[in-house]
Amino acid sequence: MSALPSVSYSITVRLEMPAGGASVSGLTTAVEQAGGSVTALDVTASGHERLRIDVTCAARDTDHADELVEVMRTVPGVVIGKVSDRTFLAHIGGKIAMNSKRPIRNRDDLSMIYTPGVARVSSAIAKNPEDARRLTIKRNSVAVITDGSAVLGLGNVGPYAALPVMEGKAALFKRFADIDAWPLCLDTQDVEEIITVVRSVAPGFAGINLEDISAPRCFEIEARLREQLDIPVFHDDQHGTAIVVLAALINALRVVGKRIEDVRIVMSGAGAAGTAIIHLLLAAGAQNLVVSDIDGVVHTGRPGIEGELAWVAEHTNKIGMTGTLKEAVVDADVFIGVSAPDVLTGEDVSRMADQAIVFALANPDPEVDPAEASQYAAVVATGRSDFPNQINNVLAFPGVFRGLLDAQSNEVTTPMLVAAAHALAGVVSDDELNAAYITPSVFHSDVHTAVAAAVRTAAGGPAELPKDTEVE
Amino acid sequence: MSALPSVSYSITVRLEMPAGGASVSGLTTAVEQAGGSVTALDVTASGHERLRIDVTCAARDTDHADELVEVMRTVPGVVIGKVSDRTFLAHIGGKIAMNSKRPIRNRDDLSMIYTPGVARVSSAIAKNPEDARRLTIKRNSVAVITDGSAVLGLGNVGPYAALPVMEGKAALFKRFADIDAWPLCLDTQDVEEIITVVRSVAPGFAGINLEDISAPRCFEIEARLREQLDIPVFHDDQHGTAIVVLAALINALRVVGKRIEDVRIVMSGAGAAGTAIIHLLLAAGAQNLVVSDIDGVVHTGRPGIEGELAWVAEHTNKIGMTGTLKEAVVDADVFIGVSAPDVLTGEDVSRMADQAIVFALANPDPEVDPAEASQYAAVVATGRSDFPNQINNVLAFPGVFRGLLDAQSNEVTTPMLVAAAHALAGVVSDDELNAAYITPSVFHSDVHTAVAAAVRTAAGGPAELPKDTEVE
Repeated sequence: MSALPSVSYSITVRLEMPAGGASVSGLTTAVEQAGGSVTALDVTASGHERLRIDVTCAARDTDHADELVEVMRTVPGVVIGKVSDRTFLAHIGGKIAMNSKRPIRNRDDLSMIYTPGVARVSSAIAKNPEDARRLTIKRNSVAVITDGSAVLGLGNVGPYAALPVMEGKAALFKRFADIDAWPLCLDTQDVEEIITVVRSVAPGFAGINLEDISAPRCFEIEARLREQLDIPVFHDDQHGTAIVVLAALINALRVVGKRIEDVRIVMSGAGAAGTAIIHLLLAAGAQNLVVSDIDGVVHTGRPGIEGELAWVAEHTNKIGMTGTLKEAVVDADVFIGVSAPDVLTGEDVSRMADQAIVFALANPDPEVDPAEASQYAAVVATGRSDFPNQINNVLAFPGVFRGLLDAQSNEVTTPMLVAAAHALAGVVSDDELNAAYITPSVFHSDVHTAVAAAVRTAAGGPAELPKDTEVE
Repeated sequence: MSALPSVSYSITVRLEMPAGGASVSGLTTAVEQAGGSVTALDVTASGHERLRIDVTCAARDTDHADELVEVMRTVPGVVIGKVSDRTFLAHIGGKIAMNSKRPIRNRDDLSMIYTPGVARVSSAIAKNPEDARRLTIKRNSVAVITDGSAVLGLGNVGPYAALPVMEGKAALFKRFADIDAWPLCLDTQDVEEIITVVRSVAPGFAGINLEDISAPRCFEIEARLREQLDIPVFHDDQHGTAIVVLAALINALRVVGKRIEDVRIVMSGAGAAGTAIIHLLLAAGAQNLVVSDIDGVVHTGRPGIEGELAWVAEHTNKIGMTGTLKEAVVDADVFIGVSAPDVLTGEDVSRMADQAIVFALANPDPEVDPAEASQYAAVVATGRSDFPNQINNVLAFPGVFRGLLDAQSNEVTTPMLVAAAHALAGVVSDDELNAAYITPSVFHSDVHTAVAAAVRTAAGGPAELPKDTEVE
């Protein structure tokens, strides 16, 4: 697949060139002919003979960006100055900030938000710790915690490299759910230490969002923290993905007119995301689910099955399949891949049942080329933003936590996740639904409120939220 | 000492009363006569016969606030409605927020601050972890960490009750030094666990502010973290207090015309703050320092001296004093108390040397009544905001961390703290200096920039800060 120019590889080139004539249009033409896309052109200084121009253009990747600079350099009269990378510029100094919600203008303000006034608030909370949810940031704050062991598709890059991702996540929490999240990137990958750290920092937060922690450690960490903490613990790579996959599947099944109880679903991948998807599909009513990993179809008779995989073997594959993934997908209604690039071909998809559904979610390179899959399947989805039907966690996690926080929930349960998926699917109306629109845009105004309301009520919270009012 | 009304005990009373005539002035007079102070009076609804008024008034304490409400109730025609506590109102929902610094308006924005663009930034940091100081919030962020074991004067109230104090601290970091701080209130008081937690969360921060951790655990926690971490670790209760005490002493000595090398200083208290003050006084040139604790004057011959106290015994009291605090202060030039209420009387102060200096910092009740002490001492300071010369940590910690962060310092050292104290003292010019003005206001515009510049240069940072410019 040849990628299109993307703003995520966007550069701003400061250059000087002769004023007048066709010189500027010659420059933009050269960029476009080299496959770049000029998105902004600002003349930042002008004289009788020379112009200084900031040219912003999107490239396919960093090599392509370098190539575009060289192309500009060949335009007659052009002198290239500083080249800036817009994505890097957006990260200078970090993407988030802490702000005080109360003005501190004078000693009176100080004496209320700090000593001596704050001592009365502390005393009130000491008497009744539940008041922390009313009188502190706890009620609206989530810790975004990673050990940097499985960051995006980059792998085990550690806590420092994970920080921009966690900051981005915190920014999304604010943008889509008005939640105050703070990133904690841990300098340990030891399960016991991670559990100690998360348990210890929990008092200041109303929820824990675990992020980019590699399997199988993520299973134990999450399970034990859920036992120990009185606030919800959510591993987004697992449950966020699972919610969006289930929502997309619900809508894909609406498109092809099949029922989740009837279809045969074949999955590739039983890692963190895969296991969570399996749990959620079963909870949502899937009856016929076959899972394959790198060693082929998972069944109870396969040697060396243990841990989470033993649970998977026991709860899936009721029809007792064995063999390879390619064999399993023959006549299957649904394929869901959360594994590795190119495990299937278009030909494999052609052997699936009529009106097949293919979710090829490996990123950035899917399990099967979506263009090829589209020739045979009725609905195709990927994890990529440059194809229709993106399976994007941002559709789920902000609303999920908004609902949990509004319900002051002590936990997050599978029924809450199923409710979130149904709510997300429901945002796409019957009128809008089609094979290229099974997931709504993250900027759709209903997405996060619908998910939040579903989770809040599933968590036993109020059907309607009270308006903020003054209270003692 | 009878306290004055304070806004930290301020209430807003919604009431209805008859319109016209002297009724409103009767109400305010009644409040003032009962010792309250009316600070605002808003008519929120008006009819021909009745007014609805929100009366805001400051009281001495909560009992006094209740009393004022009863006084208002006795005014003819008044019907009392809701009574709100302004300090509690200022805490509803917490005092801090997390905000995104970049707009997230569309998919292009998303693709730069989150996937796929953020992956390039992560990769850059994975290759060069030092880039985290340039491309993430790390460069400007401080963790405010407590275990809730010694919160203000309240004692061991735990992590939930500590949260409003730590939020207040974070708000002050922002207000006075533009630092992004986040509170972490730990659900453990185990030294090993606290060290594990702080060490683990360190990658996302450029500094650690330990807060309200009880002695002697705070000594070991700080010392071991300083060994293990490559960012500065600062226990504000110790070093923040010590800086402000040294600054105040420098200026008090300017007032009385004595030199720190010459004076005999007697301290009461060898806890967290006391020990840090001792270290700093010695580093600043004090030669004649005698320390007393609950068991009397500390000297190497006293039985049961161990730990930090052994260090104190070895490094102070070169004149070999023994006996009680009251004996030690006779003819002393300086008394510094960080211990307990009422350990000295005015008579004790009268036996000090001429032009004596008394810092009675126990809060809320000082070691000696400052009004009595003022009859005999030339300069008196307390920790209270309702007396002149408040020794207030807010004068130090914002600037100290600003300097450390701007220097990208890996540590905080005693010379940096001494430099901070001299800079803080220097904010009070010779023209301004007098016995009632040895510490500047925290709202003085030079305080935090002066402290920051001193710490930054002492930490090997640049003499001048570069202007923020676009950089790739």
